[in-house]
Amino acid sequence: MIFSKTYTLSEIAALLKADFEGAPDKPITGINEIHVVNEGDITFVDHPKYYDKALNSKATTIIINKRMAAPKGKALIFHEAPFDAYNKLVKSFVKFVPALQKISPNVKVGEGTIIQPGVFIGEQVVIGKNCLIHANTTIYDNTIIGDHVIIHAGTVIGSDAFYFKKKPETGYDKMVSAGRVIIEDMVEIGALCTIDKGVSNDTLIGQGTKLDNQVHIGHDTRVGKNCLFAAQVGIAGVVVIEDDVILWGQVGVQKDLTIGKGAVILGKSGISKSIAGGKVYFGAPVEEVREKWKELALIRKLPEIIEDIKSLKGLE
Amino acid sequence: MIFSKTYTLSEIAALLKADFEGAPDKPITGINEIHVVNEGDITFVDHPKYYDKALNSKATTIIINKRMAAPKGKALIFHEAPFDAYNKLVKSFVKFVPALQKISPNVKVGEGTIIQPGVFIGEQVVIGKNCLIHANTTIYDNTIIGDHVIIHAGTVIGSDAFYFKKKPETGYDKMVSAGRVIIEDMVEIGALCTIDKGVSNDTLIGQGTKLDNQVHIGHDTRVGKNCLFAAQVGIAGVVVIEDDVILWGQVGVQKDLTIGKGAVILGKSGISKSIAGGKVYFGAPVEEVREKWKELALIRKLPEIIEDIKSLKGLE
Amino acid sequence: MIFSKTYTLSEIAALLKADFEGAPDKPITGINEIHVVNEGDITFVDHPKYYDKALNSKATTIIINKRMAAPKGKALIFHEAPFDAYNKLVKSFVKFVPALQKISPNVKVGEGTIIQPGVFIGEQVVIGKNCLIHANTTIYDNTIIGDHVIIHAGTVIGSDAFYFKKKPETGYDKMVSAGRVIIEDMVEIGALCTIDKGVSNDTLIGQGTKLDNQVHIGHDTRVGKNCLFAAQVGIAGVVVIEDDVILWGQVGVQKDLTIGKGAVILGKSGISKSIAGGKVYFGAPVEEVREKWKELALIRKLPEIIEDIKSLKGLE
Repeated sequence: MIFSKTYTLSEIAALLKADFEGAPDKPITGINEIHVVNEGDITFVDHPKYYDKALNSKATTIIINKRMAAPKGKALIFHEAPFDAYNKLVKSFVKFVPALQKISPNVKVGEGTIIQPGVFIGEQVVIGKNCLIHANTTIYDNTIIGDHVIIHAGTVIGSDAFYFKKKPETGYDKMVSAGRVIIEDMVEIGALCTIDKGVSNDTLIGQGTKLDNQVHIGHDTRVGKNCLFAAQVGIAGVVVIEDDVILWGQVGVQKDLTIGKGAVILGKSGISKSIAGGKVYFGAPVEEVREKWKELALIRKLPEIIEDIKSLKGLE
Repeated sequence: MIFSKTYTLSEIAALLKADFEGAPDKPITGINEIHVVNEGDITFVDHPKYYDKALNSKATTIIINKRMAAPKGKALIFHEAPFDAYNKLVKSFVKFVPALQKISPNVKVGEGTIIQPGVFIGEQVVIGKNCLIHANTTIYDNTIIGDHVIIHAGTVIGSDAFYFKKKPETGYDKMVSAGRVIIEDMVEIGALCTIDKGVSNDTLIGQGTKLDNQVHIGHDTRVGKNCLFAAQVGIAGVVVIEDDVILWGQVGVQKDLTIGKGAVILGKSGISKSIAGGKVYFGAPVEEVREKWKELALIRKLPEIIEDIKSLKGLE
Repeated sequence: MIFSKTYTLSEIAALLKADFEGAPDKPITGINEIHVVNEGDITFVDHPKYYDKALNSKATTIIINKRMAAPKGKALIFHEAPFDAYNKLVKSFVKFVPALQKISPNVKVGEGTIIQPGVFIGEQVVIGKNCLIHANTTIYDNTIIGDHVIIHAGTVIGSDAFYFKKKPETGYDKMVSAGRVIIEDMVEIGALCTIDKGVSNDTLIGQGTKLDNQVHIGHDTRVGKNCLFAAQVGIAGVVVIEDDVILWGQVGVQKDLTIGKGAVILGKSGISKSIAGGKVYFGAPVEEVREKWKELALIRKLPEIIEDIKSLKGLE
């Protein structure tokens, strides 16, 4: 998430009521999780295991729960609960304002776009030209939608990331979502789909991609151009799906992996690690489809195998 | 379901136009299915196979399709179609009244709770403090929601149980739902989830539990505290899920079983019988994950096994 | 799709600005895809592989991208892009008109039918008697619903077919849906289901069939009478499901196949080819349940098989 204005280290530290090390006027231009930080960002780290990763990341300011000297070019903010501090910052920049009407006041809608009855559109949403938003759809704050986009009825765009941190005594703490959903031109989204906003980055649906009904796409996932996802496909968070990928019905994709350009995944498959493009896959866990068919054929030979062993044993 | 007032045996029998055996002023305090009855309840039985179970249950009044003497302490109502009689009773106590507006008149909403546009809230719903109900959500009659609950857009709470009884000539007869949905404090429910009301008991989501998008939870299912269910999980009716259970994406759970405390079920698994807590599971049907990995490794050895048998046969 | 009035060959050719061969006053009574055409229909063909099929189909007028003599009794319309021409025709007969209110003006609703708040009903929808349409449901244009039908909250009936044609340069082109959804008497549909309209024919849900929550049914699929589909079942397009079929939770059905009368499919199964009625099936890909259980039992014997081979080898 890039801030709408630049803050200084001392301003942010004051907001968190925390000590800091670094130039008080050091600029902070955005906030991001450790794996997606850019220069100018503030991030957080609360586990010694990840201290090095955070201190060597592109982030220029790090909220950390250990007193230490700041590495060269970096600033540190000392806080006993960096996760809570990060959430507090996000909340102060992404304020949720209760809506008073179905179409919020600060919404931009392009020429030729049709919005059917019962649609809810949150604050700062931008919708391009010649779109068709069907009835009872919900579009959360800050969503960006391109031109010639069709969204079918009841779909929900921009709901919060499913991202919780276990705390021993209080159950789960929620990571506040600071990102958006961006939908490029000529995308079509079926009925009753859900696309979550990014936690700190944006969730992206690339140009020309088509989603069937009841598809779920998790936070910070980036879908390429001209992909086809059939009904009831579910994709977790932080997934990269390259261009021209086809996922057939009820395919499930785990978080934090990449599906290569032009891969085709047959129905009901489950993908738990990155897979190369240009091939056809099937199964849960997924394999190349030829390997999977061979495997199924071999399993069907088991009665024969057992007979063979019996007769071999009889020969002893 | 506990009645809002106590009825007498003769009142209920009159409503059903049925004969009875027992003290006419015997109090009837609620109505339940045979497997969840409590003292004071009326229940029904229509198959000789279950007569003993019903007559020995905690129910104090039984609608039955056979004339017999009432067991000690019990009352009987004689009716040729006990299922229909039961449904008739439920319908007379749980009246569906068409709504005239999006927020029904007899709704209680706590301080600090935000209800976004397009939300429908049925009669007698109670919502606690500091909740956030996102746009276009539907909450059926009689639902009870605690404090600090977040419900994302388009979700449906309290729809009818999927519970039908086959009748040879008329197709399926529907069991009328008399129960409610109860959502405890600090629960978060994703977008486009469905939680059905109980048939005679309540469907329960325990404190601190978090549901991702497009999760389905069936009637009378009881989910413990601090569980996490990822997107597109589906849970049938009358399931017990103990505390701290994690179900990853697209897991399916059959009816009438228990998942023990702290169990973790990997994505796309299918659970068809009760499983112990504290372990990690995978597969459809589900196995402990280590067993499942071993099994998959053994299947990959099949080409080698077939080669071995060939060479053993060659030795003959 | 049957036209509301009969057109002539010359009228249609003029609309497409295309040459034709045949009697200018030849009547055209409807438009359909090649596999569902009837006499009087116009259809299209754009690949030499399917020329014969189109020219020998029941269609009386064919849009084709090759100049040739018309077969006896047929008319031809010559167009370099028959798919685009077909889409143009459909669009001119099935006009989408933006709705100005939640219940469109030309809607027929039978006596005793209750429509809860937030429901959207498109143009030309017909709903029978004594139905109950729960809150925030969306019913697209031209849907036909019988008597005593219950539709739970948030469900979407009549969304567009997921039917795209890859074009090398422009990504995917959408086939415009000309068909409808028809729901017969005494059907019950759960919350957050999606039923797509037909591409050229109608999608049909037969009398007395019951759908649980989050079920998806694709375009042109025809479901028989008294079927039961549990939650999160997904059925692709152009499927035929005969009467009395039971699909348990999360079953997936591929396109263009038939499930025979009375078949029962256990939860999480995947069906990729037609299956006979009257049997119980399980697995992905699906097998008769007894075969599947045998197979799973054989897989569990693999450690023993490997031991046997080891000791046989030891005997060498």
